[in-house]
Amino acid sequence: MRELIRLKKEPRISSYYSIVGSHERKGPLGECFDEYSSDNKFGKESWEKAESEMQRLALAGALKRAECADADIDALLAGDLLNQCVGSSYGLIDFDIPYITLYGACSTCALSLGIGALLYNGGMANKCACVTSSHYCSSERQFRFPLEYGGQRTPTSQWTVTGSGAFILGNTGYVKISEVMLGKSVDMGISDINNMGAAMAPACIDTLKRYFNTSGCRVEDFDLVLTGDLGYEGSEILKELLLRDGIDIRKNHADCGLMIYDRDKQDKHAGGSGCGCSASVLAGKVMRDLESGALQNVLFIGTGALMSPMSLYQGGSIPAIAHLVRLESLNGNIS
Amino acid sequence: MRELIRLKKEPRISSYYSIVGSHERKGPLGECFDEYSSDNKFGKESWEKAESEMQRLALAGALKRAECADADIDALLAGDLLNQCVGSSYGLIDFDIPYITLYGACSTCALSLGIGALLYNGGMANKCACVTSSHYCSSERQFRFPLEYGGQRTPTSQWTVTGSGAFILGNTGYVKISEVMLGKSVDMGISDINNMGAAMAPACIDTLKRYFNTSGCRVEDFDLVLTGDLGYEGSEILKELLLRDGIDIRKNHADCGLMIYDRDKQDKHAGGSGCGCSASVLAGKVMRDLESGALQNVLFIGTGALMSPMSLYQGGSIPAIAHLVRLESLNGNIS
Repeated sequence: MRELIRLKKEPRISSYYSIVGSHERKGPLGECFDEYSSDNKFGKESWEKAESEMQRLALAGALKRAECADADIDALLAGDLLNQCVGSSYGLIDFDIPYITLYGACSTCALSLGIGALLYNGGMANKCACVTSSHYCSSERQFRFPLEYGGQRTPTSQWTVTGSGAFILGNTGYVKISEVMLGKSVDMGISDINNMGAAMAPACIDTLKRYFNTSGCRVEDFDLVLTGDLGYEGSEILKELLLRDGIDIRKNHADCGLMIYDRDKQDKHAGGSGCGCSASVLAGKVMRDLESGALQNVLFIGTGALMSPMSLYQGGSIPAIAHLVRLESLNGNIS
Repeated sequence: MRELIRLKKEPRISSYYSIVGSHERKGPLGECFDEYSSDNKFGKESWEKAESEMQRLALAGALKRAECADADIDALLAGDLLNQCVGSSYGLIDFDIPYITLYGACSTCALSLGIGALLYNGGMANKCACVTSSHYCSSERQFRFPLEYGGQRTPTSQWTVTGSGAFILGNTGYVKISEVMLGKSVDMGISDINNMGAAMAPACIDTLKRYFNTSGCRVEDFDLVLTGDLGYEGSEILKELLLRDGIDIRKNHADCGLMIYDRDKQDKHAGGSGCGCSASVLAGKVMRDLESGALQNVLFIGTGALMSPMSLYQGGSIPAIAHLVRLESLNGNIS
């Protein structure tokens, strides 16, 4: 488990559901998402409640599509970026499912899929639900400035995605999770809260190097090496530093943070970020391509920055982590 | 997994280490703890850094006692009460171990032992480390008021324990984890941040009722039904409401929050609370009694409140959760 875990009993992703805000709806993947809110409020009176509502809708949608009731699900794995993970705890309160609360920052989607897959692999859960979210407005005021302040954003800053994705793991579906590699925390001394990509890239490099060193796989074995939210800055660092170590992912790397917005037409600087970024892009776009067989083999690496505003005020740098899950299509028709 | 999980491959607690602050050192269990800081600062310049240092010292102590290096440990499961769990992420940054970040509020110690035991049971981890902490001073300013404000505490309020506990799960040791039951979130409408016991008791009742309904065990089978931090208020509610359902735990219930301070001599109102409360009492006192055989069979239920100050400002009530692990002594000499 310290390195790669090849699952003997591989869970399938039985269903998934994505929900986003207005900016994400207007982006290149806009049509892919299952649901959106044109005012980003999802019918609620605060940004935090809107974020909780996204999680509720995402899980309800995924359960409905999987034709599951609460009682069919053995464990619910969820988390978000808000203090004390209240996006999840309030959004999911009405579901009658044993609840594992995770805080992996923006890596939480991959972490929840990984831990869910391990519980399935060990025979301890037959079905799991994994849910994560982020909301631009709740994140900005918590981590940086309230929107009303009108703070200027720096070129390296990313835009926290308003979105949520939910996944049901079970024994049906056309996509399986075959491998899991847990991340280790890595801190290279970056302390700029407006350059999270640079802080998270080294953790992603650590996980990918460990993966390619131990798996026997080569980069060419994958259609896609999909990172969660390194954005423009972090993705460039990732590709350049991996290349120095002889790992060339330039041809098949994609980053959810770069996929979700139009870099030319949408004013999002270095791209999208947040728990909801990888969750909504995976549930909205990548899962569909895996199901159709357009993608066969995807390494999904969720990246997270484990600082708090308080830890940065006190002079700390930004520890980061990157968890990996391998997704494979069971629809070989188009490969 | 929705209900009770009886472990086929039962992990043992190979080592444990406890560390506390000055108030805990002066309490009835003071001599039991491995280490303490007389000024609660552990050599650091902020309360948050002091809390991180506790986690570092606790894990280093447990690893040393188990004669383990980082490379021997398959997974590190950790969490705390601070925003974005920075107590753990900064305290544990130097350990080269795959890292699962949990946020279960005050239930995190039980959650980490439970998830670690499940990973061991499934054969995915041969050794795990579980670490949790809380610090009175970092918690007060985050959840209530900065200490300098001198706010008056209400009679039902609890005192966040300054403490940390670390555990190494593996195949050696005289105490085993034999059963795990994950909690579900329960919200009975309590919204008083100075009465966390009342908010958490219903979650504990839910878990215990599910346990006794499905396990075939009776209360008399246990030397101790040990709750994490219900304190005086929550413990009274727990015992009274369980009794109405025909479950009488009055003779063998204990609460870590009531064990750690002297209710008459220490001005701690309704008792101790926090992630570090159950972690330090378990690692400092209960584990020793299980190892010696003085205790044979303990149901340990970690209780957590999943709100944030923001969610309460916005009119929310307090969702709570309670995770259960069963601890059994392998030293039958004294039973």
